[in-house]
Amino acid sequence: MKGNAVVAQSGGPTAVINASACGVIQTILANPKTFTGVFGGLNGILGVLNEELYDIGKEDPAEVDRLRRTPSAALGSCRHKLKDINKERGDYERILEVFKAHGVRYFFYIGGNDSMDTADKLGRLAAETDYDLIVMGVPKTIDNDLAFTDHCPGFGSVAKFNATAVMEAGLDTEALYTHDTVTVNEVMGRNAGWIAAATALARRSPEDAPHIILLPEVPFEIEKFTARVGQCLKEFKRCFIACGEGSKTPDGKYLGEAGGSFATDAFGHTQLGGAGEAVRRIIENEIGVKTRTNRAGTAQRNAMHFASKTDADEAYMVGKAAVEAAIKGASGKMVTLQRISNDPYQCTTSLVELEKVANGEKMVPAEFISENGFGVTEAFRAYATPLILGEAPLEIAPDGLPVYARLAKHMLPKKTGARK
Amino acid sequence: MKGNAVVAQSGGPTAVINASACGVIQTILANPKTFTGVFGGLNGILGVLNEELYDIGKEDPAEVDRLRRTPSAALGSCRHKLKDINKERGDYERILEVFKAHGVRYFFYIGGNDSMDTADKLGRLAAETDYDLIVMGVPKTIDNDLAFTDHCPGFGSVAKFNATAVMEAGLDTEALYTHDTVTVNEVMGRNAGWIAAATALARRSPEDAPHIILLPEVPFEIEKFTARVGQCLKEFKRCFIACGEGSKTPDGKYLGEAGGSFATDAFGHTQLGGAGEAVRRIIENEIGVKTRTNRAGTAQRNAMHFASKTDADEAYMVGKAAVEAAIKGASGKMVTLQRISNDPYQCTTSLVELEKVANGEKMVPAEFISENGFGVTEAFRAYATPLILGEAPLEIAPDGLPVYARLAKHMLPKKTGARK
Repeated sequence: MKGNAVVAQSGGPTAVINASACGVIQTILANPKTFTGVFGGLNGILGVLNEELYDIGKEDPAEVDRLRRTPSAALGSCRHKLKDINKERGDYERILEVFKAHGVRYFFYIGGNDSMDTADKLGRLAAETDYDLIVMGVPKTIDNDLAFTDHCPGFGSVAKFNATAVMEAGLDTEALYTHDTVTVNEVMGRNAGWIAAATALARRSPEDAPHIILLPEVPFEIEKFTARVGQCLKEFKRCFIACGEGSKTPDGKYLGEAGGSFATDAFGHTQLGGAGEAVRRIIENEIGVKTRTNRAGTAQRNAMHFASKTDADEAYMVGKAAVEAAIKGASGKMVTLQRISNDPYQCTTSLVELEKVANGEKMVPAEFISENGFGVTEAFRAYATPLILGEAPLEIAPDGLPVYARLAKHMLPKKTGARK
Repeated sequence: MKGNAVVAQSGGPTAVINASACGVIQTILANPKTFTGVFGGLNGILGVLNEELYDIGKEDPAEVDRLRRTPSAALGSCRHKLKDINKERGDYERILEVFKAHGVRYFFYIGGNDSMDTADKLGRLAAETDYDLIVMGVPKTIDNDLAFTDHCPGFGSVAKFNATAVMEAGLDTEALYTHDTVTVNEVMGRNAGWIAAATALARRSPEDAPHIILLPEVPFEIEKFTARVGQCLKEFKRCFIACGEGSKTPDGKYLGEAGGSFATDAFGHTQLGGAGEAVRRIIENEIGVKTRTNRAGTAQRNAMHFASKTDADEAYMVGKAAVEAAIKGASGKMVTLQRISNDPYQCTTSLVELEKVANGEKMVPAEFISENGFGVTEAFRAYATPLILGEAPLEIAPDGLPVYARLAKHMLPKKTGARK
């Protein structure tokens, strides 16, 4: 089937989601017999709903190639969840209206669970209404929580950066333990603890940071935690904690939101904030040692300056594989990564139904969590280490800083009326 | 004069303070006619007070060489301020007692203002009591606030990392502006705004982050600030703010500590926290757009994984120069960096009296601050850019993460009684 393609990005940016976009775009451009044009959706599905499409074919090919070395989401992203199609079909019909107006026969959506759900529903509605549309999902999430794929593009790079930052900040705590005795380093991962777990890769010997890892999968019990901090202080004279932002109390409340002593200052005032801040207050109140908090925030998921080459290469590979599968007629599928072997590390791609991915969420399994709940097992290290290997190429300008792409985004003239 | 040398580190770690230690140690080891031994002070001057000295001559030379590529303070650091020598000479006399017991005739102290003050007082007391002791200061501070030196080792690297992190997180805000519209990235610098100013290097075009820089040198006026944020939202649909942790209200209170609406949540509860959190609350309360905060914390000053080669080389150079000057008989001096030219960038070392450095503090001067107070001038860019050039060498292990040094620290037998 010959037609135009739309590629769009969704959800939180990563260091390598642009590498996936680059894989999609360059493979489309290499197959002009199938693809008559390639358009970007400005800010994900929002751009399609608003008929804000731009012609990627008019971009400088060098800038498109630079996407492979550019963090964040250069096509523009969004956090827009479409309404349940069973209750409200309007958004989906609007998307098809825009696609029809622009001769779009291929839709490549790079994102996580919600994006796969959107793509799936859209593909089904197109089939129902006899509009030929191929929809393909390209996996992306630093959270590494998509099911049916060995791991997710984006995870290896956030893991490599955070493990390095923990190693480096751990040396700071080691040098200054007589003053700043405990450090809590909060990392992303709202539901799954993969990112927090990956900081364990920094720990080559018992005295290395992190001494304690807090995973959302392991309910936070204050007595057990403070006892473990006390042990570390006795053994190492310091304690470095990697805290997943999604860490929860036994009754399921996020630490950063929980009430009681978890989030109350000396005056009894409620203090909201991140999990790391909550853990700091617990340590200062219960143990009485000075505690610092680090939270790289959005910088961690965009740290292309020290990204995993394995991750960047695989991100490109899944984008390319999505287009190749679409050319062969696949639709309603997401590309997955399938690990063939660990030594040497080999990984290939496969396909899975979008519907399956949309409803799954992969937490850190029990066999990857150490017995005391504050660390990881050798099995996890064997799983995660290959994903952070190699340093992704970086282009440095004469001013000493990285060069990243910014697309010109030549907007297409609108052909439909305004979104209702 | 022949004798032993003590080298010690003090204050907050940096990416390159170990490079300075390496410069000191390797130059000492290369001059056995002068130096009979080289000892480390465990945790700075605290280790000398406690007679906790270790024999660096027994370290593996490869591990000593690796210090040049290792962040934090591998000798051990401290935040111990000695009492005023005019009121209490005991600590200083104790240090001399320990030095005498171990035949120490050279003291190299790597640190900031306070360390230079300590070294100065110690040198004077030694002279008064007719004990031949050469004391030399080696400058170190990410804050870049030492007087009489063009810049300070440690600054170039924290500047390079933070500018990169702001560039990368800035692309995140650019991609997700429809949801996360404002980002506040807090950086270090308790009194001087050099680090915050350096994030401006990330901004190659007006739409690049950071759009607003908050410097401790410029009093924070809430109306002026919110107006500027509003302008950015209008112009760029997003706003990225680099906030110096030492930013203050017009009456001199730190933003993070200030009362009133600055630190009060919707319920009127006082919320303590960093300057970045205070700025986030102001934006959410006054403008009503979702705001995220990033704060790399101690990770920023140890980011050897993307450190400035210029900075690392100069850090080694000042350490080497301190020893070479001591061999020639200099004492009571700190090594300074003197810029010869900017294009090509050339820099050499000189010496200044410790006493002068101890009492100076160099803030960001008015000619480096833009007229509206929210940015920097071209003169600042010309000053700072050469300092971040080049990437310091990094050793990566087969596990994909950096290899950093840890000294064995073979402790010397104690020869004096316990510290009184």
